[in-house]
Amino acid sequence: MDTPDHAKLPHIVVVGAGFGGLTFCRKFPAGLARITVVDRQNHHLFQPLLYQVATAGLSAVDIAQPIRAILSAKPDLEVRMAEVTGFDLAAKRVRLDQGELAYDYLVLAVGGATSYFGHDEWRQHAPGLKSLDDALHIRRQILLAYERAETERDEALRRALMTMVVVGGGPTGVELAGALAELARTVLKRDFDHIDPTKVRVILLEGSPRVLAAFPPELSASAQKQLERLGVEVRTATRVQNIREGVVELPGGEEIHAATILWGAGVMGTPLAKQLGVETDRAGRVPVGPDLSLPGHPEVFALGDMVTLTDKNGRVVPGLSPAAMQMGTHAAEIIAHEIRQGTREPAARPAFAYFDKGSMATIGRSKAVAQVGKLKFSGYPAWVTWLLVHLLFLVGFRNKFSVLMQWTYSYLTYKRGARIITGASGTPPSHSA
Amino acid sequence: MDTPDHAKLPHIVVVGAGFGGLTFCRKFPAGLARITVVDRQNHHLFQPLLYQVATAGLSAVDIAQPIRAILSAKPDLEVRMAEVTGFDLAAKRVRLDQGELAYDYLVLAVGGATSYFGHDEWRQHAPGLKSLDDALHIRRQILLAYERAETERDEALRRALMTMVVVGGGPTGVELAGALAELARTVLKRDFDHIDPTKVRVILLEGSPRVLAAFPPELSASAQKQLERLGVEVRTATRVQNIREGVVELPGGEEIHAATILWGAGVMGTPLAKQLGVETDRAGRVPVGPDLSLPGHPEVFALGDMVTLTDKNGRVVPGLSPAAMQMGTHAAEIIAHEIRQGTREPAARPAFAYFDKGSMATIGRSKAVAQVGKLKFSGYPAWVTWLLVHLLFLVGFRNKFSVLMQWTYSYLTYKRGARIITGASGTPPSHSA
Repeated sequence: MDTPDHAKLPHIVVVGAGFGGLTFCRKFPAGLARITVVDRQNHHLFQPLLYQVATAGLSAVDIAQPIRAILSAKPDLEVRMAEVTGFDLAAKRVRLDQGELAYDYLVLAVGGATSYFGHDEWRQHAPGLKSLDDALHIRRQILLAYERAETERDEALRRALMTMVVVGGGPTGVELAGALAELARTVLKRDFDHIDPTKVRVILLEGSPRVLAAFPPELSASAQKQLERLGVEVRTATRVQNIREGVVELPGGEEIHAATILWGAGVMGTPLAKQLGVETDRAGRVPVGPDLSLPGHPEVFALGDMVTLTDKNGRVVPGLSPAAMQMGTHAAEIIAHEIRQGTREPAARPAFAYFDKGSMATIGRSKAVAQVGKLKFSGYPAWVTWLLVHLLFLVGFRNKFSVLMQWTYSYLTYKRGARIITGASGTPPSHSA
Repeated sequence: MDTPDHAKLPHIVVVGAGFGGLTFCRKFPAGLARITVVDRQNHHLFQPLLYQVATAGLSAVDIAQPIRAILSAKPDLEVRMAEVTGFDLAAKRVRLDQGELAYDYLVLAVGGATSYFGHDEWRQHAPGLKSLDDALHIRRQILLAYERAETERDEALRRALMTMVVVGGGPTGVELAGALAELARTVLKRDFDHIDPTKVRVILLEGSPRVLAAFPPELSASAQKQLERLGVEVRTATRVQNIREGVVELPGGEEIHAATILWGAGVMGTPLAKQLGVETDRAGRVPVGPDLSLPGHPEVFALGDMVTLTDKNGRVVPGLSPAAMQMGTHAAEIIAHEIRQGTREPAARPAFAYFDKGSMATIGRSKAVAQVGKLKFSGYPAWVTWLLVHLLFLVGFRNKFSVLMQWTYSYLTYKRGARIITGASGTPPSHSA
């Protein structure tokens, strides 16, 4: 694919092939630069559906697509599966676990990590949900809890095996709790002889006074009601004091014994941000300029969940995939323009403005909340909207088709296709950036 | 589901929910006995398609189905996910990792294990293909070899990364080698910048003079020609002398350096067979009587890959899934008859007769060999037959549908959906029975 003067083109290194990084590559015009995309994984992950892999609704392969396959039609673009270990911003070099890369422009889009609010020791007892390996680990844990409950004679132990706690009432926590309740009450209902899966307790803990705090209050209330209709015990204004193996400690000395404790609470910047030598915010996110460039480094852009930014309209840009995609487009436009002009004038760069297309969260079968502009809706219409939007944005025709088939199948039969336990019973996968 | 006199019914313990064990449960008439099915996994695995998971053609979930879901409609049947650790045949008890089970009849159908012909030290360098975890491990290894080759500067190392050896020219080896060659030559063809996947060497080593030795010679010849057309180097009459990390040693001091070495050669009885206290054959398989019962234990049946048997027509029963299924039916008929009659007369039991429906092996897109009765065919007609038969026997409507979709997709687009690397890079899964 090399053009004759390939080597003379400026070199852009993109770190991370999530929503932000991929959008950058797709929007960047051909023929202007060489691009090298670096990612630790060989696949792009459709994170909004990760909870469905964790709860046995979808297979891992359905929500992932090889980066090489997505970008194979792009000329002058190379994909490298490698881990970034550090930066030499002065020399314009990225250090990898194997070798290093020199760049003219650097675009950082590595996403966020799960934050335990300073309690990293909770991680081993309450895994988060960031990667396919996380999701497969959680799926294994949930399905094994049922298997163990089936043969457990001790009443208290059995109760603990049939108790599942989700910490955090944001979209991830709400979706996880709803999916866990549905799995128990519809899918597994008739599969056991000694336990009754419909008696499984799913408890959603949220520190603030309402779930989905980023949504309008009436949608929070609706979401809570829909969760409760599924049998989820929603406890708001309840701050977790401590998490031990199989135990969540609440204020006032209350303890919940639960074999499954899942963490859907905090998102923080990637540990990689610290390597950049810039001051990060309390959540470890990188502050960028209005043009998305790193302070003092107009050739380095950062975008997506790893940054903190108030846009030109004074709005705090949320850590959502549409925001990351819009930032990817913005950085691509700036860099393409400068390469075409042959100049770099940071002062003349346009500032980023976030366009809010709305937000939604799904709770279960025919249960969801959605907000589009001033429109707020919940229940079945919100759920259908959620389905359509997520199908629309799933990368790759095959995945869309396969997910649609599985959803239709689940909807019609109340079954789930991915109830398969794989992987050794050992340690959970590492929860890195 | 308990009937009033549930506890008074005889108790049958079935160990293993593969083709033999499942068929036993399906064929056993309702109301005659309580059945407990014990399996180490929560899923039944459609082993004949395992090589497609290993070569990124299908997702793990497509070829597995939860045992509970398959058997949930059966009354008086319980499923336990547990590991059998031993037997007390005199007391009629099976020991599990958690507790034990008393039985009136015991049906053993635990399948086979990968045999390294006395060279167990080769296992770590040349993984076999028996479980989903094996397949996912191999998929990861193959895809990572390409990723590493892409960035490797050293010519010899890159060549080794692009060399794949399959040991054993039986159906598993032939199917693996064909699928590896196709993956390189069609699927990955355009995805890399520094390597040319069509230059990947796939070498199939077979100790005997021809591949698919159980097939008629003309089909062996056809299979070899079809493999070679795909670019596979087929070396028959070539016995492996030793396997080290990344190296296969051949007679005459020849060495093949290959990052990927897969073992498709031997099948042996399960290690569990030794716990039975009966003399096994050289391959570790249990000799059973004509009625499939264990010598001296008319209440214990063994079937499938774990046994060695010459049937009443003087034919050695092959280690194939149709044979295991037929044995499952045979054992179910004998036990049901005896429970109905209220007597146990081993002398009056019918002897098992294997009915050969034919055999086939697939090599790649439109490439296969098949034999049905006196009919032998190869190429496209054999391939279509293979597709239909495997779809027909895939357990569960959903899996059939999903596999059909993925095959159609692959056929039309030359892509594969499951090229996703998951799992830590650590040790391979255990290759147990």
